[in-house]
Amino acid sequence: MIIIGERINGQFTDVEEAIQDRDEEVIKDLAQRQVECGADYLDVNVGTSVPSHEREEAMLWLIDAVQEAVDAPICIDSPRQPVIEAGLERVEKPPIINSCQADMDELDTYMNMAMEYDSGLIALTMDKDGVPNDDQKRVALAGNIVMKARELDFDFDDLFVDPIVLPVSATQTQPGFLLEAMQQMQNLSDPLPHFNVGLSNISSNTKHNELINRTYMVMCIAHGVDTAIVNPMDEELMDAIITAEILLNEHIYNDDYLSAYRSSK
Amino acid sequence: MIIIGERINGQFTDVEEAIQDRDEEVIKDLAQRQVECGADYLDVNVGTSVPSHEREEAMLWLIDAVQEAVDAPICIDSPRQPVIEAGLERVEKPPIINSCQADMDELDTYMNMAMEYDSGLIALTMDKDGVPNDDQKRVALAGNIVMKARELDFDFDDLFVDPIVLPVSATQTQPGFLLEAMQQMQNLSDPLPHFNVGLSNISSNTKHNELINRTYMVMCIAHGVDTAIVNPMDEELMDAIITAEILLNEHIYNDDYLSAYRSSK
Repeated sequence: MIIIGERINGQFTDVEEAIQDRDEEVIKDLAQRQVECGADYLDVNVGTSVPSHEREEAMLWLIDAVQEAVDAPICIDSPRQPVIEAGLERVEKPPIINSCQADMDELDTYMNMAMEYDSGLIALTMDKDGVPNDDQKRVALAGNIVMKARELDFDFDDLFVDPIVLPVSATQTQPGFLLEAMQQMQNLSDPLPHFNVGLSNISSNTKHNELINRTYMVMCIAHGVDTAIVNPMDEELMDAIITAEILLNEHIYNDDYLSAYRSSK
Repeated sequence: MIIIGERINGQFTDVEEAIQDRDEEVIKDLAQRQVECGADYLDVNVGTSVPSHEREEAMLWLIDAVQEAVDAPICIDSPRQPVIEAGLERVEKPPIINSCQADMDELDTYMNMAMEYDSGLIALTMDKDGVPNDDQKRVALAGNIVMKARELDFDFDDLFVDPIVLPVSATQTQPGFLLEAMQQMQNLSDPLPHFNVGLSNISSNTKHNELINRTYMVMCIAHGVDTAIVNPMDEELMDAIITAEILLNEHIYNDDYLSAYRSSK
């Protein structure tokens, strides 16, 4: 499982304030704690409260703070291409771009950009018409992503197809559609790309959010998801992820598999 | 989800001793607590410490104790046909027989017996050669079960195909094979039978047994399992089951879905 730590994101109040105050210690502390808890990558997103013309600078400041604190590579998270490009110039290790949509021209642009910078790429199964309402359109858009990757000889190990998690509180049919789509996507190609979920969206505006997060995470893993943007400091979530992987024979079982996994990180 | 409470089983020391001492209160208490926690059926198994010639009598004593305590129907659990038949004569509500194997002659005998007594039937995907080592044989045996049910016009709503959970500590490839088999079994027939797991076997001889139980339960639900023999007094397990069902749109989401589900039972 590839764990991408979600916490350095301006949508969280502590990070929003740290960006405003340019308070490096908050960012460095979140970076260190997420890596200690098992993050392989750290997602970095300036959020929406930073004025548009300051977002590139804010992204660079965040990246510098993270890179001073930890060795983990960065997942550069922005809907804006100039912010992504600024980040790609600044990172010291091969990053992941988060994200592009599945329109053919956008895929072409972002895959070429990712290859130029030796970066991974998260490609969402949505297009200019928005997020699909069903499983079929998701699978069709994943097909576009794989087709474009083949055309450009894009390394499938750098490709993360993201079927887009929507809140169960808003649209209760969608979590099941996503699992059904994931099952169908297992036949998309050989080898397969990675499959990523931005997990926490599932529990947006719910009361039992951690329970919903870890339950859906396990369901997604059972259907082939191998990468997730999550809060690795949620210990019960990480326990569930490690256990699901043990049950799929991804790590060797022993009675102390939880601590063995954690000490191997 | 159909929840079958597992606790009235002579393999548990408290039940073994209660059977030896004919201590009804222990059994009645376990029956009441399991029903309060959400059991739809109560599994009743005399265990292996009762001498062979006393097992029918012990089964009848257990069934009487349970029926005096609760209204829930019984899942008559024995590998011996005479013990099953004694139970079928005694129960007051339509029960479930647990279980038969997938050899054609045994399926014929047990399905006819179930129909005679208006009983459900758990049919295991194993035969006289034992439990399959892979997913393919499990699917083939499920095919036998469905074929025999069609031949006898056995009601699919009374049929519970059980792909047989084995301990992850003993054979780490099997939990994944079972999920793969479950996925393939979704195409077996229309309508489908129920799919049942005897959950706790997954965590036999493990240290983190409750974590392993609830994680595997969620993975099984994600692949179509709709019936489980579990300990309903494990609150975190029940939380996970209810949440997985919410995520598959089996119940209406609201912020207090956990308590809403429990008060509906």
